[in-house]
Amino acid sequence: MEAKRPARTPQPPYYSVVFTSVREEGDHGYSEMAKEMAELVRSQPGFLGSDECRGADGLGITVAYFDTEENVKAWRANASHTVARNLGRERWYKSYALHVAKVERAYSWERPEDSEQSEESEQPE
Amino acid sequence: MEAKRPARTPQPPYYSVVFTSVREEGDHGYSEMAKEMAELVRSQPGFLGSDECRGADGLGITVAYFDTEENVKAWRANASHTVARNLGRERWYKSYALHVAKVERAYSWERPEDSEQSEESEQPE
Repeated sequence: MEAKRPARTPQPPYYSVVFTSVREEGDHGYSEMAKEMAELVRSQPGFLGSDECRGADGLGITVAYFDTEENVKAWRANASHTVARNLGRERWYKSYALHVAKVERAYSWERPEDSEQSEESEQPE
Repeated sequence: MEAKRPARTPQPPYYSVVFTSVREEGDHGYSEMAKEMAELVRSQPGFLGSDECRGADGLGITVAYFDTEENVKAWRANASHTVARNLGRERWYKSYALHVAKVERAYSWERPEDSEQSEESEQPE
């Protein structure tokens, strides 16, 4: 398996969707649905990549990248995603926030295999 | 202490800075510097809020919100932040990515205290 690293995104502009949530206690079907949604989003038109994490304090962040605003809206309107969102309010989350934003600049850095320090690279606008 | 919940952000537009990183093994001064940076960013002009998490797989995401692009750039140029970034490449990270984006739409939801289901609210553009 490839080592964990942030999603490789293209040259801006494109869109980011940041979903920040605080979980309720207990699973109540969350893990299964989260796995389904993670697979479903990958098959959406214009999906460019995603990263996610959840800390010990219950706060989690998922960032998904899409090529256009239209494809962000199509994902939001997806029927299975809408069902999951409603279940999220009913069962899984204490609170959440969603931020849809247009990526203007992106930088990335990866440790070189020879361990020399390197500069970060910018994906120019 | 107030219950954990996502940062309360104002009506868009404003800017999001998403820092996604994969940690190296060991602390090597990371925890101390991370705490310092978390305090420092709160004192920056135009800082609106932030959320962060790191999962068991070593991938972490920090999202900070700023009022303007100028204040995003000022934070990037901050001397202590620049030192921390350089130490990050030297010691703490296997890889990272940074996405600077203009927030166009934001939604939030919080479980009502009477446990009734409620609709999410939009901070209109």
